[in-house]
Amino acid sequence: MKALIVGGGLSGPLLSIFLSARGHEVELVERRPDPRTSPPAGGRSINLGVSARGIRALRAAGLWAEVRKLAVPMRGRMVHLPGRAPAFHPYGRSRDQILHSVRRDGLASLLVERAEKQSGVRLTFDTPCLAVDPDTATLTLPGRQVTGDFVVGADGASSVVRTALHRRLAGNFRRDHLEWGYLELTIPASAGLPIEALHLWPGSGGLAVAHPNLDGSLTCTLFLPRQGSDPAALIAGQLPGLTALIPDLPDQLAAAEMSTLTTVRTSPWQHDGRVVLVGDACHAVYPFYGQGMNSSFEDCVVLDRCLGEHPPAEAFAAYERARRPHTDVLAELSERNFFDLRDGVRSPLAVARKRLDLELHRLFPHAWVPLYTLVSHTTVPYGDALRRARTQERIAAAAAGLTGAALVAATGIAARRFRRERTST
Amino acid sequence: MKALIVGGGLSGPLLSIFLSARGHEVELVERRPDPRTSPPAGGRSINLGVSARGIRALRAAGLWAEVRKLAVPMRGRMVHLPGRAPAFHPYGRSRDQILHSVRRDGLASLLVERAEKQSGVRLTFDTPCLAVDPDTATLTLPGRQVTGDFVVGADGASSVVRTALHRRLAGNFRRDHLEWGYLELTIPASAGLPIEALHLWPGSGGLAVAHPNLDGSLTCTLFLPRQGSDPAALIAGQLPGLTALIPDLPDQLAAAEMSTLTTVRTSPWQHDGRVVLVGDACHAVYPFYGQGMNSSFEDCVVLDRCLGEHPPAEAFAAYERARRPHTDVLAELSERNFFDLRDGVRSPLAVARKRLDLELHRLFPHAWVPLYTLVSHTTVPYGDALRRARTQERIAAAAAGLTGAALVAATGIAARRFRRERTST
Repeated sequence: MKALIVGGGLSGPLLSIFLSARGHEVELVERRPDPRTSPPAGGRSINLGVSARGIRALRAAGLWAEVRKLAVPMRGRMVHLPGRAPAFHPYGRSRDQILHSVRRDGLASLLVERAEKQSGVRLTFDTPCLAVDPDTATLTLPGRQVTGDFVVGADGASSVVRTALHRRLAGNFRRDHLEWGYLELTIPASAGLPIEALHLWPGSGGLAVAHPNLDGSLTCTLFLPRQGSDPAALIAGQLPGLTALIPDLPDQLAAAEMSTLTTVRTSPWQHDGRVVLVGDACHAVYPFYGQGMNSSFEDCVVLDRCLGEHPPAEAFAAYERARRPHTDVLAELSERNFFDLRDGVRSPLAVARKRLDLELHRLFPHAWVPLYTLVSHTTVPYGDALRRARTQERIAAAAAGLTGAALVAATGIAARRFRRERTST
Repeated sequence: MKALIVGGGLSGPLLSIFLSARGHEVELVERRPDPRTSPPAGGRSINLGVSARGIRALRAAGLWAEVRKLAVPMRGRMVHLPGRAPAFHPYGRSRDQILHSVRRDGLASLLVERAEKQSGVRLTFDTPCLAVDPDTATLTLPGRQVTGDFVVGADGASSVVRTALHRRLAGNFRRDHLEWGYLELTIPASAGLPIEALHLWPGSGGLAVAHPNLDGSLTCTLFLPRQGSDPAALIAGQLPGLTALIPDLPDQLAAAEMSTLTTVRTSPWQHDGRVVLVGDACHAVYPFYGQGMNSSFEDCVVLDRCLGEHPPAEAFAAYERARRPHTDVLAELSERNFFDLRDGVRSPLAVARKRLDLELHRLFPHAWVPLYTLVSHTTVPYGDALRRARTQERIAAAAAGLTGAALVAATGIAARRFRRERTST
């Protein structure tokens, strides 16, 4: 079988490794230059946090040991609030509940390097895919056409494979842009921030997240409203801690370009054993759960499993059935986490609720697992994770209700006793 | 002021009449040929039902008297069920609660004819718009560029103006295709169907609607699942009445092409006084409420009003604020009506509920107005119509609840009396 992969970012090369292991021939085309020889393109986030789902996929491809060498472990979240000492919140109770900060360019280069070494895999950069015929699995490239047994669209949120597929099938498509965008800044190693943490500066008018790099610097992503916001004034007013950490802040702000944040939901993801989509092409999400790359890598694992369990013509439909409900849930969770990050980290009620959640997890490590832990530190499918979290919420609410009922009952008994005592005197 | 309108279907020419009356110069470009000299394009529905909102817009443009001459009044809905006599349900209690069936090509020709006669309006057909600059209100046409004060995107569900606007603004976009599509068939005048009605053949596997034409024929739209359905078998099994009405049914089915049904929801609709969208470009809806053209014509009325009430730079934002919440509601209602048409017309409970709704309307013509009547026979904004209908539903439910409570109370009293009587004997 010959697979044509459009898109050589992250999941394209990873998938080519899985397909090669299944004995498929793979031709991958990517419109951008080879990441090993070119500076990273603008408009893409510089750092990524690899979590359990990404680790599982990289391990299955035999890559995790190498990726780990590129990564800085993040053992928890360090929250910075104005006028207070930074507070460190560990991600989990066990040593393996950590995230791994890697630079996109390093990870991309490693994936491409390894993919190229697989038998039967050919990668071509600087080559846009001009057209796709979803019925014959044919790509039109500059100057030539190539036909395979199937086409994989791993070409991101603006996927040309998806566009061709949906022109053929009258598919459903939804793209949302968050009203907030982001700028990327660098906090130098000299700032002396603890490195084994994800740093967070919450704020209702703007917020910042920083991922550590191996050289001790941190990549700081400043999220703020796209319209009518002044980054310098925002930092001075709401995130004053950043000013001291970035000595050349005015220069960095002058050079930074605002990027947008996109959610893509779509269906169908596949057609007749000929075309299938993975990653952002079928489910771009906001980055606030840190699951964009992790979920794309998980797609590769699930697609590979379906290719092993089903005849080729049915594998893609099985993959979509198995996968789409969960990435739809991830889109919701990632959006909700934006509001939590913006408003919740500073709300005493939300903090108390989170503490109770973690405390119950400590007491009942298997029976009670917070949603964040299920999403980031397990490979429980996203939809199942959400269902489990909702059950836990209902139990907590019922417990609160029982407590309330007991209180009412106790008050009633006390009142009656009081009345009786009065009557008897 | 010079307005550039992209799209010469229905709302483009109508809007040019409004803009000309405001003293604007108008240049309209349309990629298809002039409807007055060309046969209608495939893939568009042939017949339209003009209702109150469309009538108001056409009247404001001084066109209603002429359109009316092209239209067949539909005084109600005639429902055809297998093995039963067709049942006629009038649309409303008053003589003016009727719909008007017109052919798209006739209406389009009339609008173009009249638009062309307005002072300062120029229409150019066979001219695709290749690019739009949303910041300078510039269109790139074959061989030339043209700049105006603002651009109107009246270019339908696949709007190039919207695409350019959203590339500039990172807009939100959602396109849904119904799993059912449609075929258009002709019922000849010789079939002898009563002409002053909208005919409906409901069915869970497929359904048909027929609009009357002036020559006594009817245009029959057959809605059916796009995948895996056999129109001939469907008609034979579920809509047998159609077989006798269309003598050359096999030939017509062989020639018919399946069209898809699209909902478009999107934001923003405008940019900085330079670009604004109307009609399907910003809110394509399924046809099951018969409101596609009517709502597009209503856009022109609201946009014209905003241009009168606000300075140019603010008029478009005011229009979007005033209009989008209502067309979002229309998208929901049109989708819901598909399910009602498919399943509801045959459900005794739904029929009983509808009858109660109409009965209450008969008793309290101003205080109680069914949702269908509000949408089709008034110009109450869609969102307000839905709110009012929900209040009515709550009243009905509360009344049912009171009835239920009274019943429980009555049962209780009866039971107690019964016990007392037993005890006293």
